[in-house]
Amino acid sequence: MKALVYHGPGQKAWEEIPDPTIQAPTDVIIQVDTTTICGSDLHILKGDVPTVEPGRVLGHEAVGTITEIGDAVTTLAVGDRVIVSCIKSCGKCSFCKKGIYSHCLGDEGASGMGWVFGHLINGTQAEYLRVPYAENSVYKVPAGVPDSHAIMLSDILPTGFEIGVLNGQVKPGDIVAIVGAGPVGLAAIMTASLQGAARVIALDLDANRRAEAHKFGATHDVDPAASDWKEQVFALTDGLGVDVAIEAVGIPQTFDSCVKMVRPGGNIANVGVHGKPVELPVQDLWIHNINISLGLVNTNTLSMLLNLVAEKKLPVDKLATHYFKLSQMMDAYDTFSRAAETKALKVVITRD
Amino acid sequence: MKALVYHGPGQKAWEEIPDPTIQAPTDVIIQVDTTTICGSDLHILKGDVPTVEPGRVLGHEAVGTITEIGDAVTTLAVGDRVIVSCIKSCGKCSFCKKGIYSHCLGDEGASGMGWVFGHLINGTQAEYLRVPYAENSVYKVPAGVPDSHAIMLSDILPTGFEIGVLNGQVKPGDIVAIVGAGPVGLAAIMTASLQGAARVIALDLDANRRAEAHKFGATHDVDPAASDWKEQVFALTDGLGVDVAIEAVGIPQTFDSCVKMVRPGGNIANVGVHGKPVELPVQDLWIHNINISLGLVNTNTLSMLLNLVAEKKLPVDKLATHYFKLSQMMDAYDTFSRAAETKALKVVITRD
Amino acid sequence: MKALVYHGPGQKAWEEIPDPTIQAPTDVIIQVDTTTICGSDLHILKGDVPTVEPGRVLGHEAVGTITEIGDAVTTLAVGDRVIVSCIKSCGKCSFCKKGIYSHCLGDEGASGMGWVFGHLINGTQAEYLRVPYAENSVYKVPAGVPDSHAIMLSDILPTGFEIGVLNGQVKPGDIVAIVGAGPVGLAAIMTASLQGAARVIALDLDANRRAEAHKFGATHDVDPAASDWKEQVFALTDGLGVDVAIEAVGIPQTFDSCVKMVRPGGNIANVGVHGKPVELPVQDLWIHNINISLGLVNTNTLSMLLNLVAEKKLPVDKLATHYFKLSQMMDAYDTFSRAAETKALKVVITRD
Amino acid sequence: MKALVYHGPGQKAWEEIPDPTIQAPTDVIIQVDTTTICGSDLHILKGDVPTVEPGRVLGHEAVGTITEIGDAVTTLAVGDRVIVSCIKSCGKCSFCKKGIYSHCLGDEGASGMGWVFGHLINGTQAEYLRVPYAENSVYKVPAGVPDSHAIMLSDILPTGFEIGVLNGQVKPGDIVAIVGAGPVGLAAIMTASLQGAARVIALDLDANRRAEAHKFGATHDVDPAASDWKEQVFALTDGLGVDVAIEAVGIPQTFDSCVKMVRPGGNIANVGVHGKPVELPVQDLWIHNINISLGLVNTNTLSMLLNLVAEKKLPVDKLATHYFKLSQMMDAYDTFSRAAETKALKVVITRD
Repeated sequence: MKALVYHGPGQKAWEEIPDPTIQAPTDVIIQVDTTTICGSDLHILKGDVPTVEPGRVLGHEAVGTITEIGDAVTTLAVGDRVIVSCIKSCGKCSFCKKGIYSHCLGDEGASGMGWVFGHLINGTQAEYLRVPYAENSVYKVPAGVPDSHAIMLSDILPTGFEIGVLNGQVKPGDIVAIVGAGPVGLAAIMTASLQGAARVIALDLDANRRAEAHKFGATHDVDPAASDWKEQVFALTDGLGVDVAIEAVGIPQTFDSCVKMVRPGGNIANVGVHGKPVELPVQDLWIHNINISLGLVNTNTLSMLLNLVAEKKLPVDKLATHYFKLSQMMDAYDTFSRAAETKALKVVITRD
Repeated sequence: MKALVYHGPGQKAWEEIPDPTIQAPTDVIIQVDTTTICGSDLHILKGDVPTVEPGRVLGHEAVGTITEIGDAVTTLAVGDRVIVSCIKSCGKCSFCKKGIYSHCLGDEGASGMGWVFGHLINGTQAEYLRVPYAENSVYKVPAGVPDSHAIMLSDILPTGFEIGVLNGQVKPGDIVAIVGAGPVGLAAIMTASLQGAARVIALDLDANRRAEAHKFGATHDVDPAASDWKEQVFALTDGLGVDVAIEAVGIPQTFDSCVKMVRPGGNIANVGVHGKPVELPVQDLWIHNINISLGLVNTNTLSMLLNLVAEKKLPVDKLATHYFKLSQMMDAYDTFSRAAETKALKVVITRD
Repeated sequence: MKALVYHGPGQKAWEEIPDPTIQAPTDVIIQVDTTTICGSDLHILKGDVPTVEPGRVLGHEAVGTITEIGDAVTTLAVGDRVIVSCIKSCGKCSFCKKGIYSHCLGDEGASGMGWVFGHLINGTQAEYLRVPYAENSVYKVPAGVPDSHAIMLSDILPTGFEIGVLNGQVKPGDIVAIVGAGPVGLAAIMTASLQGAARVIALDLDANRRAEAHKFGATHDVDPAASDWKEQVFALTDGLGVDVAIEAVGIPQTFDSCVKMVRPGGNIANVGVHGKPVELPVQDLWIHNINISLGLVNTNTLSMLLNLVAEKKLPVDKLATHYFKLSQMMDAYDTFSRAAETKALKVVITRD
Repeated sequence: MKALVYHGPGQKAWEEIPDPTIQAPTDVIIQVDTTTICGSDLHILKGDVPTVEPGRVLGHEAVGTITEIGDAVTTLAVGDRVIVSCIKSCGKCSFCKKGIYSHCLGDEGASGMGWVFGHLINGTQAEYLRVPYAENSVYKVPAGVPDSHAIMLSDILPTGFEIGVLNGQVKPGDIVAIVGAGPVGLAAIMTASLQGAARVIALDLDANRRAEAHKFGATHDVDPAASDWKEQVFALTDGLGVDVAIEAVGIPQTFDSCVKMVRPGGNIANVGVHGKPVELPVQDLWIHNINISLGLVNTNTLSMLLNLVAEKKLPVDKLATHYFKLSQMMDAYDTFSRAAETKALKVVITRD
């Protein structure tokens, strides 16, 4: 089959490799019908994630059709159309039983890491994919949900909701600020309404993304380059700051802006993937009563969010901006990697 | 009356000042029967808390007898024996209604700050004290609870429980590490059992305090000066770290040790009062799924903890190590400020 | 002043009585600008609530203007436009501190009962009203929120949300059934979205009310008179029943329909005011893992809901169906008491 | 092998039947080392549970040694010593993912029922047992925990904790009443401390069991036959009733006593297995703000409770009162069925 293979920092190729095969009775093989590219794929290509070894097929998001099942699989069948979660779950370790699939101890890939596709085992940017622990790692797609919507459930919708909105403990009436209106930030914006947010403020340096944010449910936007950005945010509150600040960029400046915006008793939810440490002013914060959460998605809300997508309760259709075929994978990467210029949010890549 | 007055960095005196008087219909005046000294009083004396102005009476912990009540006070009477919370609560602002008394917006002292005694208004190290919003800021002491137990409810017991144990989300079966076995750390150790902790590990450089910790419920102790301290802690878990790490010192090294010890999905609860920033390795933590809480006590569990003290469910009697009279205030400060040498935990200072 | 006075079962009059006066330093007097009638006022008039004594002014919902304040009141001023909560809260008893204002122990009216207006003390269907514990019992109305919206916050919006939606533990993705689409049932329907309900099913014998329900957010409706009503409801779920069933009528048949509809692991939230016992089939339910909540509103979400109304996030404007002047109080009662015929939801009664 | 076989109401025999065999790749076979008898086994024998068909091996509690594993089993090995949960869990259905193993949809036995052993498939009162979905249904026993302690984890300890203490929402400082001091009631008493209960009141008609209750952590006991039993209970509270009432008998009178005892804002947790309906006085309760939970255990806390037993934090050793060999099964039933006379709590039945 063809697949997008990582060959070390800066090097990738869409090339022929052997088809995947069933390796354990709990595996399935799927034909990839739709995949996409994530910001973390770009990080890997820069060489920022050393646990990804050359020769690895990249990608951790897919919608596909089951072509083969292992002997222990009873709840899935050949022909089923499924979403592949970016996080595999063995369903039986102590972490999975608590819903912390992100740290699944199952023996695929590194112990204690749920994110294996395109990381520790071959990923989804390929014609076929082996999915370990399939009954806990894929989700049947209801009729009526197109691939271009379903693909958003693999990673970004659960990430925005779980790591942004739920970890941030958004509750009815809250004023929520999201720093960074990229795909995951928009997913947080879109799902903040599920917890009853009263105001949702989008902050992004890019005017286009600030405008886009309103289509996903932002009620206000603020340009963080403005010298009075903090005053603008505080003016949208009772003067004491936001209830929840969601960091969806991953650099010290944006993390720090969350620290500056959050009110006493409020929450900071970090979603961004960081490359270096941040300085936490605990000398001021200790008396400020705040909470900071950090985390990798568990996708334990995937099924629930999928129901809401099927009910058309979430404007997930607005995320796909560009479409490609699998054979155009290199073009898709090119478009996605120049997002500021191409205005790409998510690129949808389908079977030829 | 006599009171311990702050006269700027390094300067204090036990001296005569005017008696306090009722200033609002919700005030009461109490005769201070018992007070104590807190680590933060020493910080103030060093000049570390610039919001404390010279002339201020220090102290925020007291048990006393009501001598006068304001016109709006209906649930307290002259003669009532009460604990004064270190945090005043107006009972009617948006923060108080949510139980966040630490940020009470009531108009006493600085807006948005519940800690006023010995900070923004005169404190408890005196013969008499004016208590604003008294019906929400003092608690009647049940018969049978001596002053030397009751005084621990003003601050340290609620602080250890709320900011350590509750913010750390300790739950049945958890393995909890407390860094720093001073009075507040011991209060966290003592109250971890209320949430069903399975193991409680005390870390402190002082061998005496590590030994003391076991009297308050620690099941294990580890010397953080040992080169293999982390391995020792991990050996007491399933090898993945503690569920909850409680920081009760307030310096970067101890904060960092909490970051190193906590398992994926775990919590760090900061109780220590910090003087400088810490560096947070978010490049590692973003994938580690942890939660960091920081905060000043609300004392909204004071009443509940007082019931447990009355039921003799908490070994609160072991906290008082030295006794003084009010007239010996300067000696009490001397003993408490040399705690490593005097082995002082809490000094109890009673009416002459 | 004029007021609607209860003179025993079946007897009421709009008549002259003395103006209310300040009785405690925490009281305020308000001029009633807008009031309304609740189903429970009709219950009282039938003689069903023996704790209401003849001579009592009825009504527990009002928006008004403060005309006088007690000596201890610092956060309210003459001229303030406020919503009166149907539940008074002293702000200082053990129940109020936990947010259970419904059982406020404050000394107004019967101890342990937050609902005092039109019950244990004079109520809101009058030209003026004395409000005890005013700083915790009234809420300033933001500019831009008209009386006809604000009046819905006194009782029905918090009741539907707190006792229906919150007690029912509605969470994102849930399928929620509301039995009874009267004013409180509609308030539950309207606020279910704040917790992310995926489907909201309205059940009511009245076709008009089933149709109305959709304007407030119901996604489906079912006629409970249909022989296959249960099958219709189950067909809207995965075949196992609804996540949450909210009872908003108050008779055994409707309670029983909730028991029949709820899935294993689900919740029944009783909002209806009942006049007789129900039979609970615990021989079947013990293995069914359900939860049943019952309760009187606390109005501890009033302020949050008011913010959402100010943000126009709730279609509260659709609740008022008929308008009267205070001097037309008897007509207003007539219209409201024939709701099936007049299609009245809430009648809004304003100052002449 | 030999097994205790149900032959219809009133009829049972310890007789030879075929050995169990692996039927699915996720099965294991265990050699039963220790089993016990539950009150529900007696119900079945009376014919009260018609879903149990003649020919069924009874029993749902066991500690044993794995003798054979299915092809998909990777985390268990022949020779492992395990506790069998009374509730099987497939680990992959929507209920299991939420921790509601009691309603596991897995295809063993009736759909939607986690309790299968001795109910829908052959049970544990036998020499060998087939366990479906073994990796999610058995738990390795740590060295140092004897069978006579481990066996209490199969059912009664999780039942008392989950359905009594957790469903009852016991929290630090609460006053908890348990009605019925049989094995499950004692398990609730024993685990109430894990949530910080301040007072634990045992009610039981049997003076011996009231005395026993104190060994498990009851702080007070009340004889429910006393005419002033309710006054006695209220005298142990602030006069308003208990925070949590746990029903562990299963008859209308005991359920009703919970209704009478619980304070406003409190919880009733039903653990008892009921045979007929109860009358719920909703005409009084609607204004009383209470919560009633009912349920079958999930055993999702089994692993955590096992850790606490290994840490010797729970006095589980006091539950076993009588010991038998498997070949003495009929005698064991005789002793257990006359518990009032024999003072049996749990009978421990071990391999010959």
